[in-house]
Amino acid sequence: MNKIEHLGIAVKDLTASNTLFQQLLGVANYKTEEVATEGVRTSFFKTGESKIELLEAMTRDSPIAKFIEKRGEGLHHVAFEVADIQAEIKRLKDEGFTVLSETPKRGADNKWVVFLHPKTTNGVLIELCQEIETETE
Amino acid sequence: MNKIEHLGIAVKDLTASNTLFQQLLGVANYKTEEVATEGVRTSFFKTGESKIELLEAMTRDSPIAKFIEKRGEGLHHVAFEVADIQAEIKRLKDEGFTVLSETPKRGADNKWVVFLHPKTTNGVLIELCQEIETETE
Repeated sequence: MNKIEHLGIAVKDLTASNTLFQQLLGVANYKTEEVATEGVRTSFFKTGESKIELLEAMTRDSPIAKFIEKRGEGLHHVAFEVADIQAEIKRLKDEGFTVLSETPKRGADNKWVVFLHPKTTNGVLIELCQEIETETE
Repeated sequence: MNKIEHLGIAVKDLTASNTLFQQLLGVANYKTEEVATEGVRTSFFKTGESKIELLEAMTRDSPIAKFIEKRGEGLHHVAFEVADIQAEIKRLKDEGFTVLSETPKRGADNKWVVFLHPKTTNGVLIELCQEIETETE
């Protein structure tokens, strides 16, 4: 685990929260992005070497919609940057953590991502992510 | 806001969670510290330029005990490092945020700290912190 890559925050209204976090952090968001497979619209802010990712549900069955229904808005997950996501998946499975998929998926912000089940991580939803390198021909 | 200084995680059993997060992060905690005024025992791990702070309640009326009773273990707060905490308190109050105390308190890890009320920050408990400088005579 190299660093906190980003901290994910579930919000109801991305437009309102963009204004709020701009006031809080003193910087504007640098991009918004839809991740259709997860049913979320995201917005990113830089803070030091890490990012704040706001997540708004696009559909009622989105994980973010269910999270907010159950717990309200707030801290949703923490993502750690790793150098070799396949090696980390293997290492963490060997340590007894439950990794939610065998192979990484394409996530927001040009990353390969995989999640660990919170039941094995003190109730914290943890994401591992690795930058997708542009393939050379 | 300079960076994510640390991410606070509420845990039931600090000893067990120290082992868990050592396995997860691949590094051991670098210190433990009791903050009697908050009724918590804390443990710190380094990750990049940020830290993970585990928090265990020492008393039943500790905010951490109440948090776990209500929501279970998990992500508790995010702390941002600021250069001038007094100026940030004033700036954020002017922006409409509710700051939980007028003056910073002495927190863990040699910091002046203050919290923002989650009702004004999308349900996220946010801490501002500034390193306490050693006074010269």
